[in-house]
Order: sequence, then C-alpha cells, then structure tokens
Amino acid sequence: MTRDIPEISLQRLPVYLNYLKSLSGEDNKYISSGAIAQALGMGEVLVRKDLAYTSSAGRPKVGYVRTELIAALEDYLGCNQRKAAVLVGVGGLGRALLSYGGFVNYGIDIVEAYDSDPAKIGMEVAGKKVCPIEELERGVQEYKPHLAILAVPASAAQSVCDMLVAAGIKGILNFAPVQLKADESVVVRHIDVAASLAILASLL
Amino acid sequence: MTRDIPEISLQRLPVYLNYLKSLSGEDNKYISSGAIAQALGMGEVLVRKDLAYTSSAGRPKVGYVRTELIAALEDYLGCNQRKAAVLVGVGGLGRALLSYGGFVNYGIDIVEAYDSDPAKIGMEVAGKKVCPIEELERGVQEYKPHLAILAVPASAAQSVCDMLVAAGIKGILNFAPVQLKADESVVVRHIDVAASLAILASLL
Repeated sequence: MTRDIPEISLQRLPVYLNYLKSLSGEDNKYISSGAIAQALGMGEVLVRKDLAYTSSAGRPKVGYVRTELIAALEDYLGCNQRKAAVLVGVGGLGRALLSYGGFVNYGIDIVEAYDSDPAKIGMEVAGKKVCPIEELERGVQEYKPHLAILAVPASAAQSVCDMLVAAGIKGILNFAPVQLKADESVVVRHIDVAASLAILASLL
Repeated sequence: MTRDIPEISLQRLPVYLNYLKSLSGEDNKYISSGAIAQALGMGEVLVRKDLAYTSSAGRPKVGYVRTELIAALEDYLGCNQRKAAVLVGVGGLGRALLSYGGFVNYGIDIVEAYDSDPAKIGMEVAGKKVCPIEELERGVQEYKPHLAILAVPASAAQSVCDMLVAAGIKGILNFAPVQLKADESVVVRHIDVAASLAILASLL
C-alpha cells in the first residue's frame, strides 16, 4: 500500500475523520474545507490538499458530502480492511491496549498477546489469549499479522523487536522509551507517553 | 518557558536522551554527533543543530561527554523540575498511566485522578487517590498542576476539557479520539493510539 501521500498528511487524516464523525444531523449534510479548517484551527489550503489524497472531491459552493468524505477517509485509511496485530507485553499498558475498543474503527484486530511472565500465560484479556513469548513465531505463522504493538519494559524492547522482525512482522508500534534498531524494510513508530507529556510541559 | 526551539526539534530531544542513557561503560565516555546520527538513522547536521539548542557543546575530535550531554538534555527538558499533573478518566488506560513509572524520569508527578463513576471514587491506583470529577477545581487549587492527562471516552472529552481549562490547566495531553477545542492559551496535544497503528499499517 505505498502511496504518494506524505506521512504528515497521512497523520492528519484521522483528525479529519474524528471531526467529521463528531458532527451529525441534517445541518451537517455538507461541509466545506473552510469549515473543517476553521473547526480544527488549520489552513484551508492545507485541508483541501490533504483531503485531495483521498478520492473524495468537494463540490463548488456546498463542499463535501459529509458521509461521503467519511467513507473516503475510512477507505483510504483501510478501516474496512481487517488487519491482524499482535501485542507483546501484558503489563498495565498492554492490558489497557488489549481492552481498548478503538482499534476496531480502523479495522485492527489484536489476535493474540505474548508475555514472558509465567503468571500471565493462559490469562485472557478482553477475550485475547496471553501466550508465552516463545510462541510468537507460531502465532505469526498462524495469524499472519503485519503489525505488532510493543508494550514491554525498555530493557526487553530491542530483543523483542528482533524476535518480531525475525518472525516476519513488518510494522511495530513501540511504547517502550527506547529507540529500536530494525531492518530498513520494517516500519517502526514510537509513542513515548512520558516524553510527550514532558514536551507539552516544555511548551507552556 | 518559551524558547526558540522548533517543536519538531524538541520532540527529538527525548530520543537522543533515551539513546544516550542506553549506552554505558567507559567505552562510551565520549560520543560524537556522527555516532548519534548513525545509531538513530538521522542526518548529522540535524543532530548537531538539535543538540545545540541545549547548552551542551561538543568538543572537536572527541565529541560530547556523554554524561554532560545527558545532563544538558535533562536540564533542557526540565527533568529535574517537579511538574504536577492530574489525570481524568480512570479506565484501563488511565489506570495504566497512573501506574506507569516513566513519568518520574521527566520530573512529572501525577498527584490526583478524577472519574465520574461512583464505583471508582475513593480507589487508590499506584498510590494516587481517585476523586469525583466535581473535585477537579479543588484539586487544581490545591496542587497547582499545569498539566492534565485526559483519558476519558470520546463522548466526555470536550466537556472535561472545558472543565480543565476553567480550572486553570495550561496543557492537556488528550488520549480520546476527538479533536478538542480550547482557548488559544492552552496547549493541547493528542495521542491517538488506534490512529497511530492505522497510519503505521498504511505505511507498510
């Protein structure tokens, strides 16, 4: 799914989607790029450019049909294509992510979870089985996930990353406060919650 | 704490910090911007420019003294200044964040949590008291936090955001999949975990 959209534009698409979904009623049948821009505090040209990456086209005077634009964004973001994911590290954050209902909106299905702690093996969290980390390869063969969520402590993150890559995972969302090294063919993105809050504090 | 650093550079400082902290031993007494750049897959000029925002200066030939650079980054990011924060929404994610040990590395102290569910009031999570949401203003007056973490469902996010702003909070880290509207003087940043994973999937 390689496309020409810059990642920075791609990152804004869920923002538009969330906003459009938050509107409802007949008053919001049509929405203009200007109205979206104003609501989100962005420039109108930028909004129009971002939305042009999806197949949706605004109509002169009235703008976009809101439901059509939602459908176009969902289509572009692959919300209707089921994507299997695995999760490694069933600590507090891992459990919260397993229980989170928001993934389904993007077609993401966490199929199995893994941990190294014997006390957690065999547990079920939100209907997902916690398996020993040694079974990761078996799980990847069985479910063919492309995505993995890494929610292990910093000290274990690189070795688990290596296991994920060896098993054939192509995209990793890393929550550990560690910069991971992985083959160039693997896309790694990082959510560092504590750093995000520290950066926010720095901006005040 | 308004400074000239672009936010995009600021966002990279914790990445350098994590990397430098992951090194250890006498072999790593000095580190050059080139070595940092290579390890993190960035350009050397960019690294040098980012690091120049901190007071640390590399020395010709040998580079930076690693411990000094760590200290300069920690100083710049305010890791040694205690910053009080409150958390609203003690669901799975809220609980995980309350229990997360990583905030202390950045001097962030979550002092109290709030929820609207009577069943959660009076609970303690990781030593933090869960108070009724009605007590938010009292809590802000008592602890003078500048930061708030918003971990409530999407449907409640805007109204809780309004309460936080009215109570005097200046920075909000929002985990709900909603674009929040707040006064311009308030800095709002968004972590949308499901959207991040969907974007990652789009990049594969």
